[in-house]
Amino acid sequence: MEETWATLGVDLHLEVGGSRLRRGLTDALREAVRSGRLAPGTRLPSSRSLAADLGIARNTVAEAYADLVAEGWLTARQGSGTRVAERAAVAPDSATAPRPRSPRGPTHNLEPGNPDLASFPRAEWLKSARRALSAAPHDALGYGDPRGRIELRTALADYLARARGVRTDPDRIVICSGFVHGLRLLTAVLRQRGLSSLAVESYGLDVHWGVAEAAGLRTVPLRFDELGTCTGDLAGAAAVAGTRSDALADVRAVLLTPSHQFPMGVALRPERRAAVVDWARRTGGLILEDDYDGEFRYDRQPVGALQGLDPDRVVYVGTASKSLAPGLRLGWLVLPPSLASEVVSAKGGTDWSCGVLDQLALAEFITSGAYDRHVRASRLRYRRRRDQLVAALASRAPSVRATGIAAGLHAVLQLPPGTEQSVVRAAAWQGLLLHGLTRYRHADAAAEPYDAVVVGYGTPPDHAWTGALDALCRVLP
Amino acid sequence: MEETWATLGVDLHLEVGGSRLRRGLTDALREAVRSGRLAPGTRLPSSRSLAADLGIARNTVAEAYADLVAEGWLTARQGSGTRVAERAAVAPDSATAPRPRSPRGPTHNLEPGNPDLASFPRAEWLKSARRALSAAPHDALGYGDPRGRIELRTALADYLARARGVRTDPDRIVICSGFVHGLRLLTAVLRQRGLSSLAVESYGLDVHWGVAEAAGLRTVPLRFDELGTCTGDLAGAAAVAGTRSDALADVRAVLLTPSHQFPMGVALRPERRAAVVDWARRTGGLILEDDYDGEFRYDRQPVGALQGLDPDRVVYVGTASKSLAPGLRLGWLVLPPSLASEVVSAKGGTDWSCGVLDQLALAEFITSGAYDRHVRASRLRYRRRRDQLVAALASRAPSVRATGIAAGLHAVLQLPPGTEQSVVRAAAWQGLLLHGLTRYRHADAAAEPYDAVVVGYGTPPDHAWTGALDALCRVLP
Repeated sequence: MEETWATLGVDLHLEVGGSRLRRGLTDALREAVRSGRLAPGTRLPSSRSLAADLGIARNTVAEAYADLVAEGWLTARQGSGTRVAERAAVAPDSATAPRPRSPRGPTHNLEPGNPDLASFPRAEWLKSARRALSAAPHDALGYGDPRGRIELRTALADYLARARGVRTDPDRIVICSGFVHGLRLLTAVLRQRGLSSLAVESYGLDVHWGVAEAAGLRTVPLRFDELGTCTGDLAGAAAVAGTRSDALADVRAVLLTPSHQFPMGVALRPERRAAVVDWARRTGGLILEDDYDGEFRYDRQPVGALQGLDPDRVVYVGTASKSLAPGLRLGWLVLPPSLASEVVSAKGGTDWSCGVLDQLALAEFITSGAYDRHVRASRLRYRRRRDQLVAALASRAPSVRATGIAAGLHAVLQLPPGTEQSVVRAAAWQGLLLHGLTRYRHADAAAEPYDAVVVGYGTPPDHAWTGALDALCRVLP
Repeated sequence: MEETWATLGVDLHLEVGGSRLRRGLTDALREAVRSGRLAPGTRLPSSRSLAADLGIARNTVAEAYADLVAEGWLTARQGSGTRVAERAAVAPDSATAPRPRSPRGPTHNLEPGNPDLASFPRAEWLKSARRALSAAPHDALGYGDPRGRIELRTALADYLARARGVRTDPDRIVICSGFVHGLRLLTAVLRQRGLSSLAVESYGLDVHWGVAEAAGLRTVPLRFDELGTCTGDLAGAAAVAGTRSDALADVRAVLLTPSHQFPMGVALRPERRAAVVDWARRTGGLILEDDYDGEFRYDRQPVGALQGLDPDRVVYVGTASKSLAPGLRLGWLVLPPSLASEVVSAKGGTDWSCGVLDQLALAEFITSGAYDRHVRASRLRYRRRRDQLVAALASRAPSVRATGIAAGLHAVLQLPPGTEQSVVRAAAWQGLLLHGLTRYRHADAAAEPYDAVVVGYGTPPDHAWTGALDALCRVLP
């Protein structure tokens, strides 16, 4: 058995590092179970002892175990420790999928990032698809403009101006296969321009940091305080070298979620918006604005896109993944003129990426008004859930404070110190897929971590929402 | 004016080289017209004098001119030379698209690579899309398996076994956004494995060679003779170093079009199929099989996929771009087990690329039998056109010999020596988009080039086919 852990450890150090350590450990363990290297019923070492073997933090191991329990690969029972699930091993043939959905799946899924997929407007979408395909010219079905279909770019230019305050025209929009594809294109261009680093927020998604790192850009986190991301650090670093902000001194691009910080949920304050735009103007810097859920704001007027402040310095990135469904794989870049041709070149001389049928359907869906109707209905649904979450916490978990609830499809629940891991493990025990805030914290972030869980209340279908909320309250302190 | 040419020349040497020289010149000239650097009405230097200025072959310049005339950027009139078209310049805003479709478009398009887009089965497709989306589980709309939807992979495994003799199961299929995306994934994996070169055929598409080169793989052409691509060169080079095949000696992967060489049209002969598979087995080599139009064979039983000979050494790549439409952006890789997990990793831990709706619709389109019906109807249509082409040549251009006509959507017309450029220019004059064989020849190919044009007879819609054929016959010697 000792050899197995050593092997896992070696694999791990080869494959992962930095902010992807936890994810890497989860993957390595899952792979070991799937391939049969860890047989069903095998008892795993305690998180303390595996952490010591691998020279990593115990929390990292504990959270990896909890994830795999939630996915059904492992079981955790009081008195019997953590074991490989009896039916977890599958045929070696399936070993090609590195991260499949759980074989048995958790009972409830509160992972943020998915909208309620059951509310996808299938009938309306099919109607738009039929109208769009019937009206399309024949040559729309051929190899296309690398920017994407003109019908969709035109619809988006209108919609984004109206709903998000984005200033653009269709010629400066490039369609992509969702945010990750857009970020791949942008980071490739930044690297080609000679940049070697990208400022990011202290909290975010490791898959995004991984895209930047794969393109050859080191990710450098900005500080995060109670008012949000400290964009002033960029200006300070540019002005004063030799301080602790050294790593930021030669940064010329920054990735931000200004409308609704992911996952912390705050909107970037006006003076911090101004600071980052000033920095970009003064240094020739570039701001990548990830507007992943800008449509869903509940308590006041929508926060307009940062791009509206300076279309020459801000790249706006939007997506249909939260407003409709990730499976569409549709996103859009709104580019400064200086960047547009480079992004188009990175995409290829022809559109090798994005299918035209969904582009045409989405264009029709937007121009017919169906998109606005769907967003309005979704906003009401998610707002109701948000209200139910807040009410349930007040009555059943008064020591927990929900933040970031003015917008979006998720909330951050602040927990008493030292309780994050036990809450996440208890959730896994209950069949509740729930992630701790630690998972979203950049490995190089300066701030003291604090205990919280991130609740994606958009994810469960309507019929399961009450049950999910109840299960959540049971595991909270 | 002299300065302008010098500038173009400088741009060119910065941006292009080798096999992309002609394409690069065309792009640079187009950009100069679009941006207004070359004003409407400006008379261009003769191809001879520009070629001398740039230090390149006159034919390269002449073909670039002909392309741009066909696209409408330039005009060519007897007695007035080649000039910038009066309405060619567009607003600088549009300068983001590097290679737009022609502003006015040629009258007839015989460029190979597109099927008849007017025959795309819109009603049948919409029916499949409706059935598929109605039946899909909610979570199909979320972030998905990086291999693509299981419904499509299952349908393809059955179909490819039946129609193409491919041996696989759904777990070893990875869906991609068409051939170019598949080739990007494969070349990235080959580079990661440490390969530095990829053997290719003497004739092919420069965009494919460009993908390999962008991944860091040098492309080394195999010889082409009257029997097709000389796959024995691989074995010879592996056995005997120090010959002219030196560049092939350390090659461990080869890209082939075995069923229907593109664009020459021959099927790889049995002994040459055996030779390349033997080479792969002996050296641990890998064969990338581009089966772009394997469904369309007219004169005998379909030539089965090379993959059937050795699923452990051949990667099969198929696409819906010829059988349905390029705009779908759907292709599929059938992978040896040894390669599957690496390709999945290159694609990403989640499917960030391919929209699920079209995947589900295609799965339904295949399993319902609509795909077979569409392919059969298309085969009849294209075969009829092929027969009409051959008959027209026999009566109106008896000095021209059509080859590669047993299959596919294009033919190679062999011309009397020294006439290729004049035929291509005459075609452009007539508003006929027609490419010379030179465009498809690898810059490092050893064989003596000969004169021919490549006629994509699948491209025109039915109503335009007779006119296109007539225009073609008018420009042939």
